[in-house]
Amino acid sequence: MIQLDINCDMAECFGRGRQAEDLGILKWVTSVNIACGLHAGDPHIIRRTIDAALRQQVKIGAHPGYADIHGFGRRPMNLSSTEVYELVLYQVAALSGMTKALGGELHHVKLHGALYNEAAERPELAEAVVRAVADIDEELILYALSGSKLVEAGLEHGLQVAEEVFADRAYLPNGRLAPRELEGSVLISKDERMEQTRQLVLQQRVMTVNGQHIDLAADTLCVHHESHDVIPFLADLHRWAKQNDVTIEPITAR
Amino acid sequence: MIQLDINCDMAECFGRGRQAEDLGILKWVTSVNIACGLHAGDPHIIRRTIDAALRQQVKIGAHPGYADIHGFGRRPMNLSSTEVYELVLYQVAALSGMTKALGGELHHVKLHGALYNEAAERPELAEAVVRAVADIDEELILYALSGSKLVEAGLEHGLQVAEEVFADRAYLPNGRLAPRELEGSVLISKDERMEQTRQLVLQQRVMTVNGQHIDLAADTLCVHHESHDVIPFLADLHRWAKQNDVTIEPITAR
Amino acid sequence: MIQLDINCDMAECFGRGRQAEDLGILKWVTSVNIACGLHAGDPHIIRRTIDAALRQQVKIGAHPGYADIHGFGRRPMNLSSTEVYELVLYQVAALSGMTKALGGELHHVKLHGALYNEAAERPELAEAVVRAVADIDEELILYALSGSKLVEAGLEHGLQVAEEVFADRAYLPNGRLAPRELEGSVLISKDERMEQTRQLVLQQRVMTVNGQHIDLAADTLCVHHESHDVIPFLADLHRWAKQNDVTIEPITAR
Amino acid sequence: MIQLDINCDMAECFGRGRQAEDLGILKWVTSVNIACGLHAGDPHIIRRTIDAALRQQVKIGAHPGYADIHGFGRRPMNLSSTEVYELVLYQVAALSGMTKALGGELHHVKLHGALYNEAAERPELAEAVVRAVADIDEELILYALSGSKLVEAGLEHGLQVAEEVFADRAYLPNGRLAPRELEGSVLISKDERMEQTRQLVLQQRVMTVNGQHIDLAADTLCVHHESHDVIPFLADLHRWAKQNDVTIEPITAR
Repeated sequence: MIQLDINCDMAECFGRGRQAEDLGILKWVTSVNIACGLHAGDPHIIRRTIDAALRQQVKIGAHPGYADIHGFGRRPMNLSSTEVYELVLYQVAALSGMTKALGGELHHVKLHGALYNEAAERPELAEAVVRAVADIDEELILYALSGSKLVEAGLEHGLQVAEEVFADRAYLPNGRLAPRELEGSVLISKDERMEQTRQLVLQQRVMTVNGQHIDLAADTLCVHHESHDVIPFLADLHRWAKQNDVTIEPITAR
Repeated sequence: MIQLDINCDMAECFGRGRQAEDLGILKWVTSVNIACGLHAGDPHIIRRTIDAALRQQVKIGAHPGYADIHGFGRRPMNLSSTEVYELVLYQVAALSGMTKALGGELHHVKLHGALYNEAAERPELAEAVVRAVADIDEELILYALSGSKLVEAGLEHGLQVAEEVFADRAYLPNGRLAPRELEGSVLISKDERMEQTRQLVLQQRVMTVNGQHIDLAADTLCVHHESHDVIPFLADLHRWAKQNDVTIEPITAR
Repeated sequence: MIQLDINCDMAECFGRGRQAEDLGILKWVTSVNIACGLHAGDPHIIRRTIDAALRQQVKIGAHPGYADIHGFGRRPMNLSSTEVYELVLYQVAALSGMTKALGGELHHVKLHGALYNEAAERPELAEAVVRAVADIDEELILYALSGSKLVEAGLEHGLQVAEEVFADRAYLPNGRLAPRELEGSVLISKDERMEQTRQLVLQQRVMTVNGQHIDLAADTLCVHHESHDVIPFLADLHRWAKQNDVTIEPITAR
Repeated sequence: MIQLDINCDMAECFGRGRQAEDLGILKWVTSVNIACGLHAGDPHIIRRTIDAALRQQVKIGAHPGYADIHGFGRRPMNLSSTEVYELVLYQVAALSGMTKALGGELHHVKLHGALYNEAAERPELAEAVVRAVADIDEELILYALSGSKLVEAGLEHGLQVAEEVFADRAYLPNGRLAPRELEGSVLISKDERMEQTRQLVLQQRVMTVNGQHIDLAADTLCVHHESHDVIPFLADLHRWAKQNDVTIEPITAR
């Protein structure tokens, strides 16, 4: 039987008074990655999201990113390894401590945006991230781009790693995500997303932008809150999983 | 014949890469208030919004607020008059200069959030705002809560003032807006919003939260981007205006 | 024998590349309060300061403040109790987790600026602060303005409280600090600071701005990094302490 | 007779209540570059600095940088040309409008930190900067690293350009500044700074880190507020200038 975790980024906004983020998606996912206040998120939204995740019994992760609000953490920022270590340490510490204080336990860490992509490629950044995560808590599970340098660094350091794949992002032949600037890098059609997910989950492979297939481990599937028709997509996914002996459940800490 | 300006706050977000703000609403309004980067907004979103407004021939205003991203500029911040002067000067200067550089002309200034409400009540803050606006450009039109101290301060200083009313906010008996924390302070139902608008525009009066009617001048009507069914509401409003000899057009500079 | 803790606010700056904060003061104090990134401070400066404090065996505290960089956390911001709880939780969690990760243990919490003053006066905010601190770790020592509502709230909740006095701030007759806007609110002369300190430590009382004396418990003395001649003042203080059977040492956790 | 402008970066801080920036340096320089609020600076400090510069009759420039407070605008951020255009437009607009409102006229633009260095090298960023400056006001003088791509782009576009040299920074053989991370990149000794300045001003050349001399035009000399003994250095410089027929005066707009 295949197990699948479904994760979703949350709390990636600011501002107490505006349209509140829709928490309805929590019913459909098994883990959430909560923004930590530097690329987005503030103490109020973080607290509210942790509380909601605890109520829904969804696993809680920290989602640290670059301190770049204008660029939404999506621009590489040329930090040194030391700066990356400090950046991740601060954000994971905040989320871990808040989650404990509110009656839960931090379950995982998933990087955001440019930091996610850079740590997937550059061993010295991957190493800095892994050290920061382990220095906070060696039991934390590291969500990392399937097949990336961050997976390697995490395993080498003895962390439990969950290899992540994306329902709505196009892949390059080297297994990296097609940059968001590229046309077609974000899958809009619900059918395409279902097709990519089916392949990833059942065959652990994906078709890349040039039509070629590559192998990818798929422990956890990322869906995006803001993607088109995300709730209907998730309903389809749950239905399909039931029919195909795929159990949708969180990654179990070993 | 009655003339009515319809204004809308825009660019109240951050982050280049997220779901872009829907610019479709520009077709339905006659003026926009563009966030200036302190409570929300960044150079990219401001530029994009100015360009879109110029294309749609919608009047462009600056929408300065407190430097409080977490609170979305909705928390009073105990600034001195000097600080309010400096805060407004900086933000209006940025918007005015950018609009000119992009081929337009700044048309008005409308305060945001807690600054809007505080300047409506406190003469020394109203005075600081008016000085800042006039020091940038004496031709700027000041949008101010109908019947407020800011209207008085603007007129006294010789600024052109447009008295503003709200389609979707409940009113207190003293003509101030019911605070957002109060239940019922934001009108959800499209019919209620239409009814309040009809009264405001045709009779220049409004029913307050305690059922009493008060008089209010209505030069410009604020609608909110994020309010429920805003496009259908605006379509209704335009239809109704046509049938009732109300001309929807921007405030003319005198 | 009298015991005295000397504390100092640190890391209240931003920016990796500028003039680094002088860490020399760590030799002269027994505890530091480290800014947590919202009114000032960033992951790099926080990490560097924690490391230095660990090397110097100085006790480490979190120094949370309002998210108001422009106002340096010194402007009251009208947060609700819930927002204050969330704000303190986030910041203390970050500092506590980072300190543990770097090999130490968070020792205390001291509020900053307007939050410090507001929690000293308003029981509902004091209560929110105390809950946040206790929810992170019930062993944390709460540094609070001597004689304030925050002292009461901390004791009531069962926290260990250290009553704090200031070497360089003038006092009002009610025991609160004279606001910084007032002339004379910050003691410039080294002799005046020594005189005030002597009285506070030996007699547990202070002369207020109107010449009257009031009683104040003095467990910990705050000195400011940026105050004039702070190192010579601290050298004098240490000398004087030795001659007067005052032991300068950190607050012992009970 | 040789003419020399001396410029200095100002307002590169935040926070109303902290140690105020020392404005004494204004007596010794002929132009200032005022931070615009994104890498540092806020409306209060900007206003105060403009007012002081007007009183001292020092020329006022905008000093735009990347929106990176933690990194003090010193980290390359991978912005597109469009983003750089928008970033510079916003900041120069704010400074230009504020200066006019306060009774002066913006005189020049000088980039900050990583943006300064990147625009010196990369023609597409230089071009974006030049367009933004010209779109605000074609009379603005562009201060640019002597011999850089930004000088070329400015001249090509018809802007008046002042080639800038540094009293306290070491040079690479290609005429670029030695990166701050490198040891020896910032000249500490007052004598070294004087020697480098003498060569730059009288011979329009400088000795690079590898001992070789290169030619550099020197219209304006940058000194740093925070550099060691800056006031004595400036006093020496003024004395030396008088003795060597060098007139210290601002760049004249053509």
